[in-house]
Amino acid sequence: MALPPNISETEFASALNEFVGAVGPDWVFSSDADVALYRDSYSPLWGEEEERIASAAVAPANVEEVQQIVRIANRYRIPLYPISTGRNLTYGGAAPNLSGSVVLDLKRMNRIIEVNDKRNYALVEPGVSYFDLYNYITERGLKVMLDIPDPGWGSPIGNSLDHGVGYTVGPYRDHFGSHIGLEIVSAEGELIRTGAGAVPGSDAWQDFHYGVGPSIDGLFAQSNFGIVTKMGVKLMPMPETFMTGTVTVPRYQDLQAMIEEVNYLEDSLLVGMPWYGSPAGRGLFDPATNADLMQNGWPSVEQLEEFVSAQNKPAWSVTFQFYGPEEVVRATWTAVQRRFRDKFSGAAFEEEDFYNLPIPDEDIPALPDKVRLGIPSLEIFHIVNRNPMNDNDPPDGHADMFAMAPRTAEGVHTAARVIAEAFQELDFPAATHPFSTPVTYYSRAFIVGVVVPTWRDPAKNAAMRALYERCLDKIAEQGMGTYRTNLAFQDHAVSKYSFNDNALLKFQEKLKDGIDPNGIISPGRYGIWPANMRNNRG
Amino acid sequence: MALPPNISETEFASALNEFVGAVGPDWVFSSDADVALYRDSYSPLWGEEEERIASAAVAPANVEEVQQIVRIANRYRIPLYPISTGRNLTYGGAAPNLSGSVVLDLKRMNRIIEVNDKRNYALVEPGVSYFDLYNYITERGLKVMLDIPDPGWGSPIGNSLDHGVGYTVGPYRDHFGSHIGLEIVSAEGELIRTGAGAVPGSDAWQDFHYGVGPSIDGLFAQSNFGIVTKMGVKLMPMPETFMTGTVTVPRYQDLQAMIEEVNYLEDSLLVGMPWYGSPAGRGLFDPATNADLMQNGWPSVEQLEEFVSAQNKPAWSVTFQFYGPEEVVRATWTAVQRRFRDKFSGAAFEEEDFYNLPIPDEDIPALPDKVRLGIPSLEIFHIVNRNPMNDNDPPDGHADMFAMAPRTAEGVHTAARVIAEAFQELDFPAATHPFSTPVTYYSRAFIVGVVVPTWRDPAKNAAMRALYERCLDKIAEQGMGTYRTNLAFQDHAVSKYSFNDNALLKFQEKLKDGIDPNGIISPGRYGIWPANMRNNRG
Repeated sequence: MALPPNISETEFASALNEFVGAVGPDWVFSSDADVALYRDSYSPLWGEEEERIASAAVAPANVEEVQQIVRIANRYRIPLYPISTGRNLTYGGAAPNLSGSVVLDLKRMNRIIEVNDKRNYALVEPGVSYFDLYNYITERGLKVMLDIPDPGWGSPIGNSLDHGVGYTVGPYRDHFGSHIGLEIVSAEGELIRTGAGAVPGSDAWQDFHYGVGPSIDGLFAQSNFGIVTKMGVKLMPMPETFMTGTVTVPRYQDLQAMIEEVNYLEDSLLVGMPWYGSPAGRGLFDPATNADLMQNGWPSVEQLEEFVSAQNKPAWSVTFQFYGPEEVVRATWTAVQRRFRDKFSGAAFEEEDFYNLPIPDEDIPALPDKVRLGIPSLEIFHIVNRNPMNDNDPPDGHADMFAMAPRTAEGVHTAARVIAEAFQELDFPAATHPFSTPVTYYSRAFIVGVVVPTWRDPAKNAAMRALYERCLDKIAEQGMGTYRTNLAFQDHAVSKYSFNDNALLKFQEKLKDGIDPNGIISPGRYGIWPANMRNNRG
Repeated sequence: MALPPNISETEFASALNEFVGAVGPDWVFSSDADVALYRDSYSPLWGEEEERIASAAVAPANVEEVQQIVRIANRYRIPLYPISTGRNLTYGGAAPNLSGSVVLDLKRMNRIIEVNDKRNYALVEPGVSYFDLYNYITERGLKVMLDIPDPGWGSPIGNSLDHGVGYTVGPYRDHFGSHIGLEIVSAEGELIRTGAGAVPGSDAWQDFHYGVGPSIDGLFAQSNFGIVTKMGVKLMPMPETFMTGTVTVPRYQDLQAMIEEVNYLEDSLLVGMPWYGSPAGRGLFDPATNADLMQNGWPSVEQLEEFVSAQNKPAWSVTFQFYGPEEVVRATWTAVQRRFRDKFSGAAFEEEDFYNLPIPDEDIPALPDKVRLGIPSLEIFHIVNRNPMNDNDPPDGHADMFAMAPRTAEGVHTAARVIAEAFQELDFPAATHPFSTPVTYYSRAFIVGVVVPTWRDPAKNAAMRALYERCLDKIAEQGMGTYRTNLAFQDHAVSKYSFNDNALLKFQEKLKDGIDPNGIISPGRYGIWPANMRNNRG
């Protein structure tokens, strides 16, 4: 049995006993078999000494039990690692940053307290999943649409607190950005409500996010400043229709002008999530073709224009999603085409899907892409498994690496180039190339991402970790960081946000010391170590 | 000469000397005449012992000088009160919460570092005003529109950090909500950058707001956690056109259904700021008419429907602002009319303004309402002076009182009713009534506001303060708080956000103690007092 750091077996047994007193014997888990369920099944440290393993888990039924657990943990100095439902694959799953932590599993707190389709919000507890919330809404015929991640088994609270993202309209895609109001149990066991919810008897908790004075909400995402026990979620009203249309531009050098136009449309809130693609570059998913193109290093623009011509396909595409009344989505598509025609010779257009919403139940199973319509599923796992790169040697998991690039062609190409270099330097086939395109989960930043496989094989994982860290190093040399990462890489990822000798992290750690003097909440999460464990930094 | 608390004249003279060493003799102000310029000219405490008066002011030219001043202040334990340009009328102007504080006047730091109309942002220093930024943009023909407050002389940083608001499209109206990236000098003199800006050499500081790990940004608004020296501002791309259209609904009881429809449109991001009005209730701006309607207390719904019939006007109106391509704004207006027709018998529609944007320079002076087009002016002062309630006895200033109400008819009516009761209980003519309408600066919350006059007359002000505080008490009994207030009322306003024995404020003060051990930044701002001054709470 693992133990929390600096805690004797006797002390730990006594603490577990107190946890049993708080939540009952059925909800304290300390057998090896039970604790194993909290391992990160995608861990890049799987089976190694450094793998992050919990010592036990406790599952409270309500806020009062959370408060009791926190008070016990403070008395014993036992680190707690709160999780919502424990998914979060590729980012650490249910495993704690610090081995020996007790997982505080909030899955039993799964009440949907309210879904309001007059003011367009939900108020949920951590154990509520996207499936739960979707079912609640559809069973009652409520006129709201969810913005959801892949896959649907995660929880709105867990996903938002991990800075998770979705697929519909700009402001809703940023899940933490579209939270409204938090309830928190502090590291000292106090119950706090933020925003208008701090006024006793408030009916505006999910209407007004600021309240008066500073907003503390941002502290609770990707961090360890408290335990979120309720969260408001801004919901998009159910649009009348959904439509997609694709624009292509012919030349390699058209990307910057295309990006500027997409930025215009996105920042004007005229379109939902835009999907960039490269018809000419599609063959480069094949590593051999990519290696061939990059055999003499990154090709010149002239070579790339030649490559485009040889493919006889447009260099770039962008698929727009439109949500709204039919009059409006059609008029927006018309305006989009007019604006692209004015700007590009050779732009081409194709109208694609059109649906009236909500989609009738009987039509949902056959829908090709449910997530953009806020319909949760687990289909992403089929898609990942269909990835041809995985066919011969499917990995056990993956650790996704994201470069947060400026919204420019240069930003995209630079990120793709240095990630390709990282792969090549470590003798892996490049996973990015001159036709790599950005993903726009965050409406104002570009993500250039690569999937780094993980295994149940320490030797393979060592190489993967070196690759992952090399990618982080190379993008940081270009002024880029990442937005989210597995436990194994959090200290490394945070270390790249080092302006003025890591002034931001030092400030965060001072805040942490002010509100969690015993350092009991998630030590090490996203690089923040409490004063008494600061030498644990990786 | 005023002195900082617990500082002798000799010590203060020595500290001022050191400030002179940091910024030069021209930029330390300590004469009575100079310091008087930092008084709050709208102060509800004007001329009284409790009026908040600075001891001196220091105006640094750059970040390094700010850091030097902070280090000196820490050595002497002198409270600093940072201001951007020092406007902020009705909310305290340039005056500090704690008398004797030294105003840190950042007006000389007035560089516009970048305006980018490809990625739609600006990066500015605190001394930059909305006029400055507007002129910079128009002189260069940049294709972005500002979202601005009244009046235009304020600064984007100062306004955002005070949770200021504007008039265009939802996400942009929330000025702090649309900041992107901060640079901060901490209370200990360290320079911090947030978001992607923490990666050295970043070109994505104004593209990606989170970086990795928790976001500290929210701590710096309406507070005292540090000194913001640079801020990114998300800008709206210049829309092709602007249009307005007004919908009216006939009956008093139509308000809830109208609100639901407006919430739908607003949360779908289909419309800019909606303006609620009451054609039938317009006569109630006259206090005598209002007193007549409310002579037997709040009228019944039947009486109110009769009142509406007697006016022969629709009960409610909403004016929509549309920003976008002409195809889209016209289609949206069509969809709006269709949706209202489906829902209300007796809805009526009137199309109003239509402009191609940007407005040609020569047409701007005659524009009736510049602020909704992002064109800064000082015209709000003419509008305030035209208010008929002020004709006979114009006040010297005002302290605006805002109830943050849920987005329901009941929320609006309840706020208006209890504010009217507060006025009547203290023998003032009611300034709200059954036809009071909400303001939608914040796209998901309603503001029901009243203007409480202030004077250069202590006796009159005592009555005004009692009235203001009674309003705060009465709305809090209904679960409502305010979002912003004058220095004189900040402790009182914060005390209403008291859930669980003021747990939120206690948490904020622990954070404060962690990062400002000497309590030198803006003690008392929005109720947050450092450990060594906690007994100053009002």
